[in-house]
Amino acid sequence: MIMKTIKIALISIVFVFFAGNGLLMAGHGHKKEKKVGILLVTFGSSEKSAQISFRNIEKMVKAKCSGIPVRWAYTSHIIRKKLAKQGKQLDSPEVALAKMIDEDFTHVALQSLHTIGGEEYHHLRRTVGAFKNMRVFQKIILGYPLLSTQKDIERVVDAIIANIPKERKKDEAVVLMGHGTHHPSNAFYSALNFQVRLRDQNIFVGTVEGYPEIDLIQSLMLKKRTKKHI
Amino acid sequence: MIMKTIKIALISIVFVFFAGNGLLMAGHGHKKEKKVGILLVTFGSSEKSAQISFRNIEKMVKAKCSGIPVRWAYTSHIIRKKLAKQGKQLDSPEVALAKMIDEDFTHVALQSLHTIGGEEYHHLRRTVGAFKNMRVFQKIILGYPLLSTQKDIERVVDAIIANIPKERKKDEAVVLMGHGTHHPSNAFYSALNFQVRLRDQNIFVGTVEGYPEIDLIQSLMLKKRTKKHI
Amino acid sequence: MIMKTIKIALISIVFVFFAGNGLLMAGHGHKKEKKVGILLVTFGSSEKSAQISFRNIEKMVKAKCSGIPVRWAYTSHIIRKKLAKQGKQLDSPEVALAKMIDEDFTHVALQSLHTIGGEEYHHLRRTVGAFKNMRVFQKIILGYPLLSTQKDIERVVDAIIANIPKERKKDEAVVLMGHGTHHPSNAFYSALNFQVRLRDQNIFVGTVEGYPEIDLIQSLMLKKRTKKHI
Amino acid sequence: MIMKTIKIALISIVFVFFAGNGLLMAGHGHKKEKKVGILLVTFGSSEKSAQISFRNIEKMVKAKCSGIPVRWAYTSHIIRKKLAKQGKQLDSPEVALAKMIDEDFTHVALQSLHTIGGEEYHHLRRTVGAFKNMRVFQKIILGYPLLSTQKDIERVVDAIIANIPKERKKDEAVVLMGHGTHHPSNAFYSALNFQVRLRDQNIFVGTVEGYPEIDLIQSLMLKKRTKKHI
Repeated sequence: MIMKTIKIALISIVFVFFAGNGLLMAGHGHKKEKKVGILLVTFGSSEKSAQISFRNIEKMVKAKCSGIPVRWAYTSHIIRKKLAKQGKQLDSPEVALAKMIDEDFTHVALQSLHTIGGEEYHHLRRTVGAFKNMRVFQKIILGYPLLSTQKDIERVVDAIIANIPKERKKDEAVVLMGHGTHHPSNAFYSALNFQVRLRDQNIFVGTVEGYPEIDLIQSLMLKKRTKKHI
Repeated sequence: MIMKTIKIALISIVFVFFAGNGLLMAGHGHKKEKKVGILLVTFGSSEKSAQISFRNIEKMVKAKCSGIPVRWAYTSHIIRKKLAKQGKQLDSPEVALAKMIDEDFTHVALQSLHTIGGEEYHHLRRTVGAFKNMRVFQKIILGYPLLSTQKDIERVVDAIIANIPKERKKDEAVVLMGHGTHHPSNAFYSALNFQVRLRDQNIFVGTVEGYPEIDLIQSLMLKKRTKKHI
Repeated sequence: MIMKTIKIALISIVFVFFAGNGLLMAGHGHKKEKKVGILLVTFGSSEKSAQISFRNIEKMVKAKCSGIPVRWAYTSHIIRKKLAKQGKQLDSPEVALAKMIDEDFTHVALQSLHTIGGEEYHHLRRTVGAFKNMRVFQKIILGYPLLSTQKDIERVVDAIIANIPKERKKDEAVVLMGHGTHHPSNAFYSALNFQVRLRDQNIFVGTVEGYPEIDLIQSLMLKKRTKKHI
Repeated sequence: MIMKTIKIALISIVFVFFAGNGLLMAGHGHKKEKKVGILLVTFGSSEKSAQISFRNIEKMVKAKCSGIPVRWAYTSHIIRKKLAKQGKQLDSPEVALAKMIDEDFTHVALQSLHTIGGEEYHHLRRTVGAFKNMRVFQKIILGYPLLSTQKDIERVVDAIIANIPKERKKDEAVVLMGHGTHHPSNAFYSALNFQVRLRDQNIFVGTVEGYPEIDLIQSLMLKKRTKKHI
């Protein structure tokens, strides 16, 4: 329950950043008719609940950028294969961009829906860089993932605080678990943990596969509890 | 009639070069299972006769490289759009390569079926270069177009000579017309004209939109005829 | 006679401009003799004390990789210009790498000496990527900056703890100030602050231009002090 | 004397193309002060006579583009090494471009002084492409080599005809020898041979290492002579 609420909150943040990136049009003297498109790029998910989030994101993007076609791409090869077996053909970022060339798009704004700028995001950056170097689009830009600039992190903290269910008592701990990665971007979980706790000492951010591990989070919780008892 | 015969001859030459390129496997330490694929890249055509040529090329490639999947891509945007209206979905090189990434190909050999290394071929080179820089394939190579090295030109001359119908008399002129281009590669038509005429003074190579123009070819033919009359 | 003169003349001219094709520089399967080099890349500094650090780093690198030439490059344009006025010619990464091509290096390892993976580091990554795509080196790699993987951060925490002067008392605060940036990598300071304080609650990491600001660090110190007083 | 005349003629052609390329300035929103530079790129030569040609080219370029700094780069590694031993430090294209970044150039026009678009020229193209992809210059362009478009070839033919010494008799053969290459661009010699002979049947273009070989040129000369004798 808590998780779902937070998810929706985070979506609104994503949207803010997307809108912020805007579409700056460079005058290269190309004669093609201008055709702007948006490509939303997610890791992908086989969960039904995620589809609802994706649909909500798309609605919000379309509401803000009305008239601009919105496409989707999925960076997870495993998810794409899994859904292909269920008859859903999902595009990789490479396929999605290649199709947009073919459809005469001249300006493409990609928005990463990843949580941190990890391996998936950096692979996406390399793909976008390669398409940039092909010089087939007049402009192609990629928006940062959720946890990026300090302002982004602050908005995420706000969203987390705002979406904690009201029935939760102040001394009840809330633990948010991210995936975690061996990539340097794993540090964003530490940063988020530090910053969210400045606002509420009983909210913790941990990761399943990276740092801070659940054991560390538990020991931090115990330390807090001890203090509380004193 | 003559044209069809020559076309088939040229195909065999294309094939020779394709086979010649081979598949050199780089050891980058990638752990993906090796999966080799061939991508034949043509300008494309809406003519039915061209489809026969394409099928013949594919047969020959498959005969020589049995077991290796063969894909097609079409560089002409106009042809792709035209055939899409007829319900035939053709891939651009970008889409074809992006799909091959998605299908886990590790080694891709592209063979250009263009006549000369003009704009279409150089655009293709840039596309291949961009996919190379993505580092998603362990190896990606692009074969030269038909008229390239001196050895290539000599084989084309052989094929032209070999495919002139036998009923043609020695003093009858044969004029082969290429498309012609404003690109520097247009010089290959002059080179071919020079070299084919060393073998048979009554065979001429001209172009529709480039140099040598049909007027020049006509004046060369008249000059020959005058000489013959003497 | 005239003919001969012209021939020689043109040959020499042609030769001047063109003899280069004689050099068979095979793109793949390089036949060049292997030559490994290290390029240490720092922001640069006009402080004398920094020169000592640079010299120490170089000593350590040379001790570990004996026999491998070590070069330096400086990413700060301002520092390079400043030192040029003092008669010290420092290379940008682009110039340093271009010179290494010229000196026949085949394998180059760059090590970033930046603190975080910010703008300077990402610009360097783009430069290295471009040289990679030139395919002039057989191998070119770039090491992460100081604060990168979780293991790196832990080592930095260890080093900080180990280098606190012994005369410092446990309840005396230690504040380490980083530069700070608007780039997402600024989050590494929050992460470091969080992790170093897990080891010693009285060590703080702040930044001059980013987050955590000195005001925040001060308020954290005051909070600690209050607690201590209780 | 003759040599000098021809040299100047060729230079003027080079210059025409250089000027033709112009400097198109794109508005990318960069805030750097605009600084335009020219980089002339030659194979290089250790011959003194070539230095005179280089100086003449530079004079002509400076006369047409007054106020724009002109730099030189040399693509031949061997020539660079040879002249380095004589104390002359020549820049490779990579070093020259890297230095121009450092000197705050924003717009760079490179002009290849190569005869044909062979290996050296295509290597240079790759270098220029890599610097383009670095996005350090607002604009970087590379001019075609001497023998490129049909218009270029026609100008070269004009220059050759115009520079044949007047004392040469119509039935005296003139043979121009190029270097020749295994690269597809070798076809430009055939094209030039074909086109120059349309204007004067007694002028021949051959190559030292490619096609047309001197033997072929000799047999063509003999054939002509036979005809003349008849």
